[in-house]
Amino acid sequence: MDFKGMDILSTEQFSRGDILHICDVAKSFEPVAQKKETSDILKGCVMASLFYEPSTRTRSSFETAMARLGGRTVTVIGEADSSLSKGETLYDTGKMMEAYADVIVMRHKIVGSVAEMALGASVPVINAGDGHGQHPTQALLDIYTILKEKGRIDGLKIVMAGDLKYGRTVHSLLLLLRHFDVKLVFASPAALKMPAEYENFLREKNIPFEVTENFGEAITGADVLYTTRVQRERFDDLEEYERLKFAFVVTRAFLEEFNPDITIMHPLPRVGEISLDVDELPGAAYFRQAANGVPVRMALLAMVMGKV
Amino acid sequence: MDFKGMDILSTEQFSRGDILHICDVAKSFEPVAQKKETSDILKGCVMASLFYEPSTRTRSSFETAMARLGGRTVTVIGEADSSLSKGETLYDTGKMMEAYADVIVMRHKIVGSVAEMALGASVPVINAGDGHGQHPTQALLDIYTILKEKGRIDGLKIVMAGDLKYGRTVHSLLLLLRHFDVKLVFASPAALKMPAEYENFLREKNIPFEVTENFGEAITGADVLYTTRVQRERFDDLEEYERLKFAFVVTRAFLEEFNPDITIMHPLPRVGEISLDVDELPGAAYFRQAANGVPVRMALLAMVMGKV
Amino acid sequence: MDFKGMDILSTEQFSRGDILHICDVAKSFEPVAQKKETSDILKGCVMASLFYEPSTRTRSSFETAMARLGGRTVTVIGEADSSLSKGETLYDTGKMMEAYADVIVMRHKIVGSVAEMALGASVPVINAGDGHGQHPTQALLDIYTILKEKGRIDGLKIVMAGDLKYGRTVHSLLLLLRHFDVKLVFASPAALKMPAEYENFLREKNIPFEVTENFGEAITGADVLYTTRVQRERFDDLEEYERLKFAFVVTRAFLEEFNPDITIMHPLPRVGEISLDVDELPGAAYFRQAANGVPVRMALLAMVMGKV
Repeated sequence: MDFKGMDILSTEQFSRGDILHICDVAKSFEPVAQKKETSDILKGCVMASLFYEPSTRTRSSFETAMARLGGRTVTVIGEADSSLSKGETLYDTGKMMEAYADVIVMRHKIVGSVAEMALGASVPVINAGDGHGQHPTQALLDIYTILKEKGRIDGLKIVMAGDLKYGRTVHSLLLLLRHFDVKLVFASPAALKMPAEYENFLREKNIPFEVTENFGEAITGADVLYTTRVQRERFDDLEEYERLKFAFVVTRAFLEEFNPDITIMHPLPRVGEISLDVDELPGAAYFRQAANGVPVRMALLAMVMGKV
Repeated sequence: MDFKGMDILSTEQFSRGDILHICDVAKSFEPVAQKKETSDILKGCVMASLFYEPSTRTRSSFETAMARLGGRTVTVIGEADSSLSKGETLYDTGKMMEAYADVIVMRHKIVGSVAEMALGASVPVINAGDGHGQHPTQALLDIYTILKEKGRIDGLKIVMAGDLKYGRTVHSLLLLLRHFDVKLVFASPAALKMPAEYENFLREKNIPFEVTENFGEAITGADVLYTTRVQRERFDDLEEYERLKFAFVVTRAFLEEFNPDITIMHPLPRVGEISLDVDELPGAAYFRQAANGVPVRMALLAMVMGKV
Repeated sequence: MDFKGMDILSTEQFSRGDILHICDVAKSFEPVAQKKETSDILKGCVMASLFYEPSTRTRSSFETAMARLGGRTVTVIGEADSSLSKGETLYDTGKMMEAYADVIVMRHKIVGSVAEMALGASVPVINAGDGHGQHPTQALLDIYTILKEKGRIDGLKIVMAGDLKYGRTVHSLLLLLRHFDVKLVFASPAALKMPAEYENFLREKNIPFEVTENFGEAITGADVLYTTRVQRERFDDLEEYERLKFAFVVTRAFLEEFNPDITIMHPLPRVGEISLDVDELPGAAYFRQAANGVPVRMALLAMVMGKV
């Protein structure tokens, strides 16, 4: 479909064809993202980068994407530097920002807030994360990473590990993976297992999945391991946290025992979930995954502004 | 007059001819501001955007103006990120910034602070608001909006409503309107009436004005309604605030009763002063007014840098 | 030597030849830095401007340097807006940022932190100050200023005055001056004298220096006075601070008595160490010194990115 003028609010809005098309466009921007070529296709365009909740990684990759395509950015960080602190609605902020920018990228801690701004703004609004709601551009770059690393998505066995209860990125990724013929394995402590609503969703879509607490077994024979951070703030019982935080740590020894060739992904930042000696393995894809944020966001920016 | 190298500090510095000239230049930038054309006339130029007091709307429109004319911006927000927090004078900051930037845009909560920096800096300094002092670029975009909406300023009947005591924008606008043949109506609660100094100023300049607490009567037969926010923080007596805040709310029913065709302006953000059902009226000009900040600031930036 | 791909972490890494080469390249950028010419040699390049500790002057001059050479900047200020606040290591942040930026400029309050990021990042990292550690670009612009003001460095008598104990800039400058045939004079209150390690360093390198508490005597017959701020926060005893803060203030009367022609430098901000009536003297070089940050940082940015 034509993305010109569209808001990017949720993973649910994409068909399989849309996802693959975005990946194709992203691939075409790789030489620019990798600094081998320069581009001016967004020359004269302005992106409003509204990060009411700070996020260095997401903001930097959006602003880099804009810069490398020749566009400009106006940045607003936090609510202190914003009309919101004076009581303005997001709808009104959207009405105002549409006059300044060609595209709005927005992150906010409240679910639905980005959609509210999109109601006000006539220019495309891209959701860069709304609390425990959606983070569609992360899910798209995760799909793009799997495709780039493995050459395909259909037929893969993908393990999701760590905090599957609160981890927003694994939920968003699931919602895109339903368009593909994959086998899923959920490996987590019982306290952090995949919520029933997602399991029910997968059953409805006839997507096979296994659930296990045995991490080694989970990755044996799998193609991709998507691991996430077990966050201390998710636990009422700190002793339980201390006991569990090491159970799903990815070390070189662990990988060499169970699956040395597996592709390892992580949304970053990592805080000990993957040990440093894993970084040199060919399958360690997490920094490449972060880098993929640039071509994928280039694709989305260019597409919604009708420049591809 | 030639604006090259000039500071823009106060509304008092403009003659009628200056104001109309700025509006002419702003009009010539409309195609760029409206994203229909691109421009590179400020290519190679750097604007220092020093917002010691944050202001999303003003800063975004200045930075957008600079970006769409091909210029670059270096942004400083808040005093924490500034030499001022180490005790540097604004004079010295100006001396330093003149070496980096071609133009300085500055907002600060202290009256006179922008003029102090202008003493130090040899490059043009534009006042983007100094506390309850001046906000000349807002006044200019308000004039520009009236001109664009009504085709003229002379002969108009303009109502100012809401908080006329503390509302900086209405005061600044008055100081520009004195150059035109207008009739003014001040509609506000007694506690928030136009200060005597401004009324005396108008008498001296032979500008006719009426004062009323009857909002409906005020707008009957008028051309423009400039309404402002009644801020809670202005009231010692919160009960009085609660009683008054609804007295000057602009609703669709109110307009339909007294003047459905009136042009409605507001400096934004609105926090309930204008109900959402007003937005669709042809006379609802407040978002267009916010948008006008871009061409007017383009004009000022280009003029003081000698690029038009 | 060829600087392409190099990190700029410490003054120790530069030979005499390196220093003079950097000054030559900086000189070639003067017309652009002084806004007489425009340049696009860094078009398509992105600088990550990571100021975990805010610094208006240093950041503004780096970002201005980048802008005037046609490059773009992605700015991160403070730790609140950063992955570090989520527990990410600087090594990992470096790994991530290398995918976005062509060069990283970083300031942080912890000594060694910039080197840690440089270990992670494959792109050049420039130290913009790491706590009481290094600030090599400041030292280079100080050398460049002396060269520009006096036409040479060899043969000069240079006085360092004020806070020689904690003043990072005088320490960094010393480490570059060892490559030149200079005479040094250290003028400070005893409580703020040059640390023994630096004096020993100079003895090893056979660089002659005098130590005095007599400020007038110190500058008599000298070529350059590099004065620094006596910071209140350095004193346990506030009475001692009050007594000493005026002892090393540079006034016009003082200069006229002891050395009216001396070149006066200061890293800025000044908070009373140099009185305003000094500003008009031909030797008052401190604002020119601040301005020199732009061509020197242009040179470093262009060199490490292999663009000169």
